[in-house]
Amino acid sequence: MERKERKIVVAVDESEESMYALSWCISNLVSDSTNNRLLLLYVKPPSPIHSSFDAAGYIFSRDVIAAMTKYTNELVGSVMERAEAIYRKLDTGDISVEKIVGSGDAKDVICCAVDKLKADTLVMGSHGYGFFKRAILGSVSDHCAKHAKCPVVIVKHP
Amino acid sequence: MERKERKIVVAVDESEESMYALSWCISNLVSDSTNNRLLLLYVKPPSPIHSSFDAAGYIFSRDVIAAMTKYTNELVGSVMERAEAIYRKLDTGDISVEKIVGSGDAKDVICCAVDKLKADTLVMGSHGYGFFKRAILGSVSDHCAKHAKCPVVIVKHP
Repeated sequence: MERKERKIVVAVDESEESMYALSWCISNLVSDSTNNRLLLLYVKPPSPIHSSFDAAGYIFSRDVIAAMTKYTNELVGSVMERAEAIYRKLDTGDISVEKIVGSGDAKDVICCAVDKLKADTLVMGSHGYGFFKRAILGSVSDHCAKHAKCPVVIVKHP
Repeated sequence: MERKERKIVVAVDESEESMYALSWCISNLVSDSTNNRLLLLYVKPPSPIHSSFDAAGYIFSRDVIAAMTKYTNELVGSVMERAEAIYRKLDTGDISVEKIVGSGDAKDVICCAVDKLKADTLVMGSHGYGFFKRAILGSVSDHCAKHAKCPVVIVKHP
């Protein structure tokens, strides 16, 4: 019998919470009776030359841009490595895992990726900023819970 | 081997979306390897004598209050029946299902119940009101995604 494939996007970032969301997903959403495809999505901030820094009149020298790009790439690597350690430890057996790196405003990139990939479920940390930070930045998880076209799981670190 | 018990609260109401959330939950969250306890939570609006209608100066006669109470109770019955039809159809096998009826402001009652019941997961529809209704009423799912003390799954009707 061919088993139904289920595509689960897990948004990962530097936070402990997103790593916890990944473990939660593997322990709670991944069942043996379905063919699970786990897509780890990391969103890099937009490259500094196109970022909102420009509007504020900042000018970055090439060296600074190169350093920032290098730093971001190292960050991607380290986040993906931590994610890998988690799903290896949790004996995922039958899951296929893919890594996707996007770039831009996290909330838009995540919603857009979920739509394009026709994901069955999106799992993410809640990014529990405090009141002021949330009021200014908005919350990525709030936005995705409202706008992503599939069920969204918001996981808080206990 | 004793299997871990997992308590999943599903907030149900009159909406198609909450019934879809229940099916989603059974198909995606309930796995054979855990001992699942499904708690269906329905929240009745606060009784009219204590409701915000009072503030606006409305006075309800006893007959009207009795009629509203009867209507609400019938609604609870009909929602729970629809929920039952869903989990019977989906061959839930090993799930124990309990029905809980709360009363008050849905968002507070749901968060409070999740906390008291020490739920592992809360599943609910997104109640996708339009912009204005959301702005005025606030969204129950928004509130719960932020304040419930466990992972929250927001399910949209496709």
